[in-house]
Amino acid sequence: MGNRIHNAAYQSKVMSAEDAAALVNDGDMIGVSGFTGSGYPKAVPIALAARAKALHAAGTPFRVSLSTGASTAPELDGELADANAVNFRTPYQSDPETRKKINTGEIQYADIHLSHIAPQFRNGFHGRMNLAIIELTAIKADGSLVPSSSIGNNQAWLDIADKVIFEVNSWQSEDLEGMHDILGGIKQVPLDFAIPIYHSGDRPGSKYLTVDPAKVIAVVENDTPDRNSPFKPLDDVSKSIAGHLLDFLDLEEKAGRLPNPMPAMQSGVGNVANAVLAGLLHGQFENLTSYTEVIQDGMVDLIDAGKLEVASATAFSLSPEYAAKMNDNAKFYREKIILRNQEVSNNPEVIRRLGVIAMNGMIEADLYGNVNSTHIMGSRMQNGIGGSGDFARNAALTVFVSPSVAKGGAISAIVPMVSHVDHTEHDTDLVITEYGVADLRGKSPRQRVSEMIKVAHPDYRAMLQDYYDVAVKVANGQHTPHDLSQALSWHQRMLSTGTMKA
Amino acid sequence: MGNRIHNAAYQSKVMSAEDAAALVNDGDMIGVSGFTGSGYPKAVPIALAARAKALHAAGTPFRVSLSTGASTAPELDGELADANAVNFRTPYQSDPETRKKINTGEIQYADIHLSHIAPQFRNGFHGRMNLAIIELTAIKADGSLVPSSSIGNNQAWLDIADKVIFEVNSWQSEDLEGMHDILGGIKQVPLDFAIPIYHSGDRPGSKYLTVDPAKVIAVVENDTPDRNSPFKPLDDVSKSIAGHLLDFLDLEEKAGRLPNPMPAMQSGVGNVANAVLAGLLHGQFENLTSYTEVIQDGMVDLIDAGKLEVASATAFSLSPEYAAKMNDNAKFYREKIILRNQEVSNNPEVIRRLGVIAMNGMIEADLYGNVNSTHIMGSRMQNGIGGSGDFARNAALTVFVSPSVAKGGAISAIVPMVSHVDHTEHDTDLVITEYGVADLRGKSPRQRVSEMIKVAHPDYRAMLQDYYDVAVKVANGQHTPHDLSQALSWHQRMLSTGTMKA
Ligand SMILES: CC(C)(COP(=O)(O)OP(=O)(O)OC[C@H]1O[C@@H](n2cnc3c(N)ncnc32)[C@H](O)[C@@H]1OP(=O)(O)O)[C@@H](O)C(=O)NCCC(=O)NCCS
Ligand SMILES: CC(C)(COP(=O)(O)OP(=O)(O)OC[C@H]1O[C@@H](n2cnc3c(N)ncnc32)[C@H](O)[C@@H]1OP(=O)(O)O)[C@@H](O)C(=O)NCCC(=O)NCCS
Repeated sequence: MGNRIHNAAYQSKVMSAEDAAALVNDGDMIGVSGFTGSGYPKAVPIALAARAKALHAAGTPFRVSLSTGASTAPELDGELADANAVNFRTPYQSDPETRKKINTGEIQYADIHLSHIAPQFRNGFHGRMNLAIIELTAIKADGSLVPSSSIGNNQAWLDIADKVIFEVNSWQSEDLEGMHDILGGIKQVPLDFAIPIYHSGDRPGSKYLTVDPAKVIAVVENDTPDRNSPFKPLDDVSKSIAGHLLDFLDLEEKAGRLPNPMPAMQSGVGNVANAVLAGLLHGQFENLTSYTEVIQDGMVDLIDAGKLEVASATAFSLSPEYAAKMNDNAKFYREKIILRNQEVSNNPEVIRRLGVIAMNGMIEADLYGNVNSTHIMGSRMQNGIGGSGDFARNAALTVFVSPSVAKGGAISAIVPMVSHVDHTEHDTDLVITEYGVADLRGKSPRQRVSEMIKVAHPDYRAMLQDYYDVAVKVANGQHTPHDLSQALSWHQRMLSTGTMKA
Repeated sequence: MGNRIHNAAYQSKVMSAEDAAALVNDGDMIGVSGFTGSGYPKAVPIALAARAKALHAAGTPFRVSLSTGASTAPELDGELADANAVNFRTPYQSDPETRKKINTGEIQYADIHLSHIAPQFRNGFHGRMNLAIIELTAIKADGSLVPSSSIGNNQAWLDIADKVIFEVNSWQSEDLEGMHDILGGIKQVPLDFAIPIYHSGDRPGSKYLTVDPAKVIAVVENDTPDRNSPFKPLDDVSKSIAGHLLDFLDLEEKAGRLPNPMPAMQSGVGNVANAVLAGLLHGQFENLTSYTEVIQDGMVDLIDAGKLEVASATAFSLSPEYAAKMNDNAKFYREKIILRNQEVSNNPEVIRRLGVIAMNGMIEADLYGNVNSTHIMGSRMQNGIGGSGDFARNAALTVFVSPSVAKGGAISAIVPMVSHVDHTEHDTDLVITEYGVADLRGKSPRQRVSEMIKVAHPDYRAMLQDYYDVAVKVANGQHTPHDLSQALSWHQRMLSTGTMKA
């Protein structure tokens, strides 16, 4: 473990993860670092989970509330959920163990727009934040705090938490120093300044996080790598969805509806996003920029190829191979990549100003363009809305992508009525499946129906048309015709028979 | 009719409304002025409706598409809908005749966030805009265009329309000159500047609209007053909802969760909004500001009382009595009131920066905080989402208000699952009825249930609890427990029996 704590005052606070975990109190609201499996604390949470288990075995209650940047990893969400040590969780997760406990009802989960959570804490909506646990790459001699592979809400948590524990992780490359741009001075509203970003590459902030040193109660050393899920080879369905989007953008540019160079793109994580990035690598678009949440493998390739000028995000979400490449070449990439506070990466002001093209995954969409990103059959939480609402509402072009079916065809991603709404019909411009692009722009709800049926799986097209034909006959109004007795019947059938097929 | 056209070039284009209406082509996409019944053209649309009726009688098809600021009045929406002359309508309406034809399916209606419509037109999502018809107060000798009682999308339409017809309305006070602040230079994204508003009272724009004079094909003179609906006396339910909100804000300020002075307020139109404004008149809050869509009677009273420092909006929505007062005293009020482009009044950037408190009406909300602002029983359009989504998503505190029941108690405003979603559970902070405040902040969906039941009408509380108890038993996940077989049963019962009561 290399020594990364070059400041004497912080050096004097170094202790073991176990000793640091002992400073956490039952009932604490804890703000932790971590975003899509990068930059989360890796030692204290494990020690805390062990402590919680021991306390529970002794009959002593011990549970905390956790607020992160976004999803973390097994060492944090997984361990603590498994130890029954989490009472409340916000704003986003994708951990199997946490998901299980949310859906058994053991964890209360508040699923919150990623740009809203820090302002909500500043406004006191979640009570006091008792403690922050934040991963760093290094502490410099003058006390400067070098962030690691994600920023998320770190600066907000350092601003508002009563006490702070740092984990200094020597697996992270010291050359990350200079990749971050931390905008300070964000307080409880009203603010009296604009977010001074007019291009994805602007760097109005500082390279370092800041904290009142008096709040720091422990510093823990560590060298565990980020989670970094391996890259899945691109499948045909994802490639075909990506192809439809790229063809569409090409036509839009030719029609003068998209400026050249293309406005900054935001892309959610997952297979389709990777396929889009791969498609861009071999396509004709140049001088690309990203204003997005996470840096994925494909963006690194686009930077290497000279096609992506700059990528602004709040975190890495890389495969182990690309994480190693990033760590080896951070000096080069820090000129092209900027990691910002998530209040800034996801800020409606900047998203709207830049005219971002937003592309996110979905669970299902309905005939009228309402989108469900979070719930399986209306009740069961998958991950959360994440930043998709920040982007979908404020982007210049809002795109949702999904394979047309899930679970081997038993579930249609296009349904009569979605079982939960995360993105309303007012927000959806395009829905893309492997069958093409449903272009909902400038259309009334009824005009959207044929577009949506076109992109449904052929097995479900006649069923959708039948639903609509009956709805038109029985509805109490022709704006958004629904047959309320059948609107959710596909979901009910799935729950009772295991397939949406009649 | 006083002469308000002081410029020779424009004077030479003066013609009758009938002659101007003859310049409109079948199939035109027309951008018109008008917002909540103020500042809409009042002569050409009536002449156009007459022309359409005559053409239809002769067997000639004639229909146009209409894009406004927001709702207009019988002389525009009403006449044209009645003449079967409207093919497509966007982004918001509240006209009985138009509503009828939307719900019979004769008018295609795209219900769009009020801040999104101008950018969508600039991006080409709605095709070309063939013509703009815009009301003005006066044209000055140097050709400056003095706006009237609303701005809405006027500057956007003047920027992008191929041709322009002006209606110069001498009923509007000439002293309105100077009340407007028109921000120019808003183009197709990306923009390279911030919206330079840091306080509700900032005036970074111009007092006048601008147009390329070559595009102006007609100027029509007119002196018809704005629609201006009479003020309804405050009812007890509205007063009690307003009282709950004001008590809540008072407590929040004491708890340090609201700065003093209070951030700018946005209030939807209607009885509850009026009751809140009346409550503020007799309450303890001082140095108030508004960053909202429309100027209502109550704001005028608050200005008179010295409690409201400045009110920023895009339009008037006054009673005839207050409209007369405004016209008589516009010289005074123009120092305290600013009418802006609706791209600015509703801009997410400014709403977020100012930390606006947003309060809007709703049709219904569900146990988990999803809100329906637009649809009756899932299919039938009432008005539209208007600007409520611009504010609800980006405000610091998002409040929805409604009486607990509609139609004499046959309909509960709190239901198991809303029949349409305009504002998601991620956006709703408070739901207020005459029974109190449901405070959903920082709560998981299940934690919200008891808050929502508390504000339901007593007649429906046990029914809601029963629904929830069964849902918990049968749902496929405990995050948002739903019984899909019963989720919409209240709406179905209403449609078949005329009441939601079992
Ligand atoms: C919607 C979302 C879950 C799709 O994820 P993905 O990885 O792209 O897509 P997948 O097809 O692999 O689906 C993930 C899982 O959901 C399941 N699923 C997808 N659609 C489904 C549907 N309509 N019904 C039931 N299950 C469905 C898949 O079967 C898969 O389940 P498994 O893990 O048990 O195999 C994901 O995009 C998400 O969480 N989005 C919300 C947050 C967001 O948009 N973030 C980006 C910006 S921050
Ligand atoms: C939701 C909205 C319709 C409520 O309007 P309101 O004038 O405050 O409230 P009212 O109680 O008078 O309701 C209006 C009508 O809807 C009906 N209504 C209200 N709730 C209903 C419900 N749950 N089911 C059926 N009808 C309902 C009322 O009975 C009334 O009908 P009527 O005109 O036939 O008597 C209105 O606020 C709106 O259009 N909101 C969306 C746009 C918006 O928020 N704008 C503000 C910012 S831009």
